Amino acid sequence: MTTVSFELLKREINRVLCKNGMDEGRAEECAQIFAESSLDGVYSHGLNRVPGFVDYIQKGLINVNGEPTLIDRTGPIERYDGNLGPGNLNAKRCMDRAIEIGKEHGIGIVTLKNTNHWMRGGAYGWQAADAGCIGICWTNSESCMPPWGSKEGKLGNNPLVMAVPSKNGHVVLDMAMSQFSNGKIEVTRLSNETLPVEGGYNKAGELSRIPEEIQETKRILPAGLWKGSGLSMLLDLLAASLSGGLSTVTVDEKKKDSTTSGHNISQVFIAMDPAKFSGADYTEQVVNETIQYIHEAELAEGSNGVYYPGERTILTRKKHLEEGIPVEESIWEKVLKM
Amino acid sequence: MTTVSFELLKREINRVLCKNGMDEGRAEECAQIFAESSLDGVYSHGLNRVPGFVDYIQKGLINVNGEPTLIDRTGPIERYDGNLGPGNLNAKRCMDRAIEIGKEHGIGIVTLKNTNHWMRGGAYGWQAADAGCIGICWTNSESCMPPWGSKEGKLGNNPLVMAVPSKNGHVVLDMAMSQFSNGKIEVTRLSNETLPVEGGYNKAGELSRIPEEIQETKRILPAGLWKGSGLSMLLDLLAASLSGGLSTVTVDEKKKDSTTSGHNISQVFIAMDPAKFSGADYTEQVVNETIQYIHEAELAEGSNGVYYPGERTILTRKKHLEEGIPVEESIWEKVLKM
Repeated sequence: MTTVSFELLKREINRVLCKNGMDEGRAEECAQIFAESSLDGVYSHGLNRVPGFVDYIQKGLINVNGEPTLIDRTGPIERYDGNLGPGNLNAKRCMDRAIEIGKEHGIGIVTLKNTNHWMRGGAYGWQAADAGCIGICWTNSESCMPPWGSKEGKLGNNPLVMAVPSKNGHVVLDMAMSQFSNGKIEVTRLSNETLPVEGGYNKAGELSRIPEEIQETKRILPAGLWKGSGLSMLLDLLAASLSGGLSTVTVDEKKKDSTTSGHNISQVFIAMDPAKFSGADYTEQVVNETIQYIHEAELAEGSNGVYYPGERTILTRKKHLEEGIPVEESIWEKVLKM
Repeated sequence: MTTVSFELLKREINRVLCKNGMDEGRAEECAQIFAESSLDGVYSHGLNRVPGFVDYIQKGLINVNGEPTLIDRTGPIERYDGNLGPGNLNAKRCMDRAIEIGKEHGIGIVTLKNTNHWMRGGAYGWQAADAGCIGICWTNSESCMPPWGSKEGKLGNNPLVMAVPSKNGHVVLDMAMSQFSNGKIEVTRLSNETLPVEGGYNKAGELSRIPEEIQETKRILPAGLWKGSGLSMLLDLLAASLSGGLSTVTVDEKKKDSTTSGHNISQVFIAMDPAKFSGADYTEQVVNETIQYIHEAELAEGSNGVYYPGERTILTRKKHLEEGIPVEESIWEKVLKM
């Protein structure tokens, strides 16, 4: 297993982005987000995504120096047009604004239309929590999952992120509406493994744990069956109708070809300042009591522990800072040559 | 199967509530919420809950004429103390305020602590949508579900409600974080049926569809496994920390006995006015396009249709208004004698 340092990883991604026309400061910021994703063990949205990201820049799907521009503002609400800029930079800008508004009004809500794939959604949850805010954000996407009762992909996986700040390590949930994200299914395939539980259907219409079989039918399973299906639809309706951007229906209609993913989508960013609610100290107390409570829960058969969302991320980050970040050899070599 | 009219059902519940000390206008409003739940086919939180609700009044767990009182107000935020009043009336008041604030600021967020079980959470989603608003609300609860990796109930089922208004029938999602709510498991047991998919574990630690087996171990399955587990925890952290109320940990600690349910809990109500975002017409368009899209999806093997959240509620409501509302004979007789 090849490992690289965070600094080297970030430097190489920065170099590639600059070479592809991204302005210097922006490239560094963008590289930081990519490298942090690999650092935190979310390989599917870190280094592994860089070649595809650059491909989208070269195809003109990502407007390399596009910045969000304000459409309108009403009290705690701001709505932005992402101008098809890099999705991770757009998202970071919008969460920044949500945090600023949240510190002023108690809650800030920022919508973003005409943007691109934000890569790891959790990044913007960590960002809000680092600023001492509760963060909630979600995105829609092109369709990739059948609504419950159907076999035809007509729903996005529409990841939802919720974060609560804590001094001992933030609680950050980052969940796609499918039981497994397409990124996770792809990573599992690359490692020649099978999924730990059923993740979709095979050609015979049976539930399957084999990544290739699921990728063949494109029938991935909603998390919680009808529940993930319903939640996915609601998150799409909210993202599109609040932002004035495209919904999964129209994202699908405007897709240039069947492989285009995460292009021209809609997002919502919410930040709340605990100080304007019950105080940061009370939030801290609630988080700590709850973590202790679940940590003391009796383990299930074969369980290796009970973890809160974000807990293993912090452990992984620490390990990778000490030992280096594991990289997929072929992708790393490819990026070095870009 | 006994059926009763909406008016008769509401009148009888109203009578029972008045007899148990609830002020007249309040009793009528409270009876309306219960009766609408049965009308919409959510039997578990309609008539079926009335005897238990009255029991809680008699035990002093529900402060029969308690009203929410304002703790503080900051811009689009209001925080209330529910004074342990009836959970459904408290919730309705708070969503009313969220709607009023939402119409003024674009978004309104109201928190509620020291409240009781809100019965059917979806009611407050329909309420927001009827007022032309997007509504989001959630509640925490005493623990009833093991966190992922554990066999000990330490998480609430913490229902989440999201509603989007539409002229052709609102889209309203009302989902507990367990694959099946305890109410649904109980209703399935009463009908001598089994769950359509696995809903929890039996004594041997195996997944089960048999309500009695799951009720015996109290190991209900989170919707989406680790995902529902994580989302449940986050909803609890947010409800408690924003409202300043109890979290599942402290709700559990303060429980009078092991059967007490939905007592002294915390909730959040959010309403957004589409007019302050991209306009009600755009919301209407997004909803209609999306519904058409999923309705046209190719059906899965054995599927009887693809429905959006809330769609079957509207059909059920219409049917029951025409044909009467089916009631559990024994419960109906009990309420008539109360």
